[in-house]
Amino acid sequence: LRGRLMIDTEFADWDKNLNAASSQTDRQDFDGALPERGTYLRRARLGAIGVYDDTWEWQLEVDFRDSDVRFANAYLAYLTDHGRLAVGNFKEPFSLESSTSSRRLTFMERATPVDAYRPSRNIGLMYETLVPNYYLAAGVFGGEGTDRDRDVEEGYALALRGSFAPYMSDDTFSHLGLSYNYRRNSKDFDDEDGDIYEDVRLRSREGARAIDIRLIGRNDIEGVEDFSRYALEAAWGHGPFSLQGEYLRVDLNLDPDKGDVRTDKSRLTLDGYYVQASYFLTGEHRNYRAFSGDFGAVRPNSTFGRGGTGAWELAARFAHADSSEHSRPGRGNKMDHYTLGLNWYPNEDMVFKLNYMYFDYEGRGGKSDGNQVLAARAQFEF
Amino acid sequence: LRGRLMIDTEFADWDKNLNAASSQTDRQDFDGALPERGTYLRRARLGAIGVYDDTWEWQLEVDFRDSDVRFANAYLAYLTDHGRLAVGNFKEPFSLESSTSSRRLTFMERATPVDAYRPSRNIGLMYETLVPNYYLAAGVFGGEGTDRDRDVEEGYALALRGSFAPYMSDDTFSHLGLSYNYRRNSKDFDDEDGDIYEDVRLRSREGARAIDIRLIGRNDIEGVEDFSRYALEAAWGHGPFSLQGEYLRVDLNLDPDKGDVRTDKSRLTLDGYYVQASYFLTGEHRNYRAFSGDFGAVRPNSTFGRGGTGAWELAARFAHADSSEHSRPGRGNKMDHYTLGLNWYPNEDMVFKLNYMYFDYEGRGGKSDGNQVLAARAQFEF
Amino acid sequence: LRGRLMIDTEFADWDKNLNAASSQTDRQDFDGALPERGTYLRRARLGAIGVYDDTWEWQLEVDFRDSDVRFANAYLAYLTDHGRLAVGNFKEPFSLESSTSSRRLTFMERATPVDAYRPSRNIGLMYETLVPNYYLAAGVFGGEGTDRDRDVEEGYALALRGSFAPYMSDDTFSHLGLSYNYRRNSKDFDDEDGDIYEDVRLRSREGARAIDIRLIGRNDIEGVEDFSRYALEAAWGHGPFSLQGEYLRVDLNLDPDKGDVRTDKSRLTLDGYYVQASYFLTGEHRNYRAFSGDFGAVRPNSTFGRGGTGAWELAARFAHADSSEHSRPGRGNKMDHYTLGLNWYPNEDMVFKLNYMYFDYEGRGGKSDGNQVLAARAQFEF
Repeated sequence: LRGRLMIDTEFADWDKNLNAASSQTDRQDFDGALPERGTYLRRARLGAIGVYDDTWEWQLEVDFRDSDVRFANAYLAYLTDHGRLAVGNFKEPFSLESSTSSRRLTFMERATPVDAYRPSRNIGLMYETLVPNYYLAAGVFGGEGTDRDRDVEEGYALALRGSFAPYMSDDTFSHLGLSYNYRRNSKDFDDEDGDIYEDVRLRSREGARAIDIRLIGRNDIEGVEDFSRYALEAAWGHGPFSLQGEYLRVDLNLDPDKGDVRTDKSRLTLDGYYVQASYFLTGEHRNYRAFSGDFGAVRPNSTFGRGGTGAWELAARFAHADSSEHSRPGRGNKMDHYTLGLNWYPNEDMVFKLNYMYFDYEGRGGKSDGNQVLAARAQFEF
Repeated sequence: LRGRLMIDTEFADWDKNLNAASSQTDRQDFDGALPERGTYLRRARLGAIGVYDDTWEWQLEVDFRDSDVRFANAYLAYLTDHGRLAVGNFKEPFSLESSTSSRRLTFMERATPVDAYRPSRNIGLMYETLVPNYYLAAGVFGGEGTDRDRDVEEGYALALRGSFAPYMSDDTFSHLGLSYNYRRNSKDFDDEDGDIYEDVRLRSREGARAIDIRLIGRNDIEGVEDFSRYALEAAWGHGPFSLQGEYLRVDLNLDPDKGDVRTDKSRLTLDGYYVQASYFLTGEHRNYRAFSGDFGAVRPNSTFGRGGTGAWELAARFAHADSSEHSRPGRGNKMDHYTLGLNWYPNEDMVFKLNYMYFDYEGRGGKSDGNQVLAARAQFEF
Repeated sequence: LRGRLMIDTEFADWDKNLNAASSQTDRQDFDGALPERGTYLRRARLGAIGVYDDTWEWQLEVDFRDSDVRFANAYLAYLTDHGRLAVGNFKEPFSLESSTSSRRLTFMERATPVDAYRPSRNIGLMYETLVPNYYLAAGVFGGEGTDRDRDVEEGYALALRGSFAPYMSDDTFSHLGLSYNYRRNSKDFDDEDGDIYEDVRLRSREGARAIDIRLIGRNDIEGVEDFSRYALEAAWGHGPFSLQGEYLRVDLNLDPDKGDVRTDKSRLTLDGYYVQASYFLTGEHRNYRAFSGDFGAVRPNSTFGRGGTGAWELAARFAHADSSEHSRPGRGNKMDHYTLGLNWYPNEDMVFKLNYMYFDYEGRGGKSDGNQVLAARAQFEF
């Protein structure tokens, strides 16, 4: 039995214009009506993992966020000397930040462009290398949101990710990576038009989740035939200091006859990037894993409760996401998002996070600058 | 891994008038159409609990009642020498019967006024004492029903509970307690009126759950700005005999401009009480725990299946709940509820309960006297 | 902690007429609009099982299929020397194929008539024998679909099953069985008519589930007062070869005043049968258990990954289901369904299945012959 729990709270100070700029339903007729505080069980997972005969690995993990059931990892994998062939439900391999477990993130949420443009978990077949110094993954995956609407003709994705560590030493790591993901969109069924393409959701919120305000990609993109995602990944660390950054891009091909589209565009491009820096006040370092191209658990030098302080980390991030292009005129939006973070790891299984966020936003209803959010999380795993 | 399962069945003999008196939707046009039997998985929980380094305690437990997911306890707590600071999802500290685990109740369901007026589990921060002879708890909590509607501006609660044991000896216990809970109501959003207060639910059913008939507080109270709950708790036991009783009261402040209110009242008071007695035919006693101000597991003197009989308990309860005052004229209701119980504890992990209930009811549609319910439960925990 | 996971994928080649013949909503206006591929987490279960003092057995298992929560086994049972008395949620005892765990089936799905006509799990009380050479079970059960609609007056069922092994030796098994199930239908409530009977669902899909096309019993039967199910079971095995077959039948009594019925029929009969053969290329045999009248886990002679091949099994099945009679004229349907299966059991806890299916169908909208489905499954348990 294993699991994780993340308990969040959030306080916000919204700019007056955010309501109108983000077109939050009818709320814009009522000034300042956006919620400004919230509590939330961000993730609550229960599951099991096992290895059988050193030949097979399996996992079954369920997430109960929001009083709803979502599958997290649910797969069976065959292990060879240098790799792993997995079938089941898991993340499509894409992006350094997306590939890193939610338990191992520096900030409470992934950077806005990663959150908005990354693929979700899907049912697929994937091969991954298991070698010391680099990582290669290739997989095919079924449709997004499969389990919730089985009336559609499922789309599929081809996903590729590769990374390597140009330089590694006792106190230094480096990471360069590249991800590519092609997705053929699912076909929905409409009583009037027959087959149409499903609306594509590439969206993100305010950088926390205890209040649910959808900002980037608020309105789903219609008539998308297929789309390609790209991520360019880099990270570097020396002792307690580390840097991380990625550029992400999505190119979408539209079929004007297969959606309720009001544009004559046949192609959209969304993109974004983030850079972040982190420093451990207590001397620890980020746990980079070249063999999987992601980050593992921080190991505090001392444990709180056994005479130690645990690990303390300071971090800062700037993220930019540009979803200005949209299938309908005027529906796009973009955001500049700043985060300051303070993390306390009392031991290997717990983290307390405090994030201060500041963002400028431009949406359908104009600009909204100077929004502020303060959020905190208590997290443990077992 | 731990869990509990409660399997219920229920047979009822309703008074002819109950349908009309309780205004069960359109059923009142059809005499006697209220269901009279039912089966139900009342609670089905899976979860895990752990202590880390004698410094941290955590729990993650999910309830699957009704083919739906609800969080039970989901928290992380820091343990000091004399207390515990917890963050997460748990019960707001209130009332002896509400604080006692559902596995440890004398009857199948909590007394009507406790069921109706107690707060639910919410996400909060709470400090509790961990000392031998008394119990003090103080906490702040977020909004009720948080996870289901994140569009609202969350309310919050301040919760206090204190209890002590005036007299304790080898075969005698006593309990006096006091609970206070202030809740600022959540604000919902309405397309026509903008911010309004969420409807407040303080309701209870017929004393069993395998048939779902809502009696006390059937119609939600509108326009509530804030409300205060009080509980006055007392219990006493000597050998196999014990008594328990509480008085509960809720004072609600209404804001006539912030709800769809049809009354000029600005204040409502609901209240109720119960008294109950229990006797162990086989000589056991209720397991009162002064350090937490609640009841623990009954420990049978002998185990069924190892040559023993297990523990046998007889119990009786009278409960009265008065929700006559309501934000809309005529919507109130009240109930006198009698229960006779027979419990068999074959061992420490199982209980079989048989409850006979009788109640008189007065609701929106008149009086209904002489309703009878027979209900049974099989319960185990692991 | 225990669980199981089944990951499915499916590719179909539908006959042009299937859309119209099966009346798939509005899709029939759009030729060929039926989905032809899909992925699906068919079963994902987590739970626990235990035995207490050799006197009690309990189980609590939850299924998360389709991002929804369903109870699988959730019961408490008392064990005697020769039997077991269980209360809780479990399968009504009926049919060899229905009684066999989904982990132990030869094909991916149960044969069409079993899938369509068998009862589901319900809350009940059941006695079963625990003796070596035969099996008898008798139980009473509450209403179907209890947890999802507690407004109804629950129906109930009386269920009987008996089986024995006329001949057993080291390399041979035989099975003869008989099942009978009487169900009084639940009463729903309708605003216009008051009490009516709930629609009865006796349906099946295309033999796989990753695409959701309802074929047999697509439209629910209305006004059913009560119904009886029968199953005639037989199986025989010698070494690696085995045969299995069943005849199933459902007789329904209709009350024309208690449903939205458009027929003057007062009685309907649905029935079907299947025969299947299986052969282990690697010499294993099906694990028949006379004491419970079902099949247990296949035990491979060698384990893949430890120098062995695992077990390889070839199987073929023909199934026929006839639901031509219906409460409304023309609503019935029937199907001839052929399946070829290849199973690989690399060890005792995993199975990979490949099923090729072919079926002819006749429904409300005519005939559709020559439909083909190719489906595969990865399955493990822990």
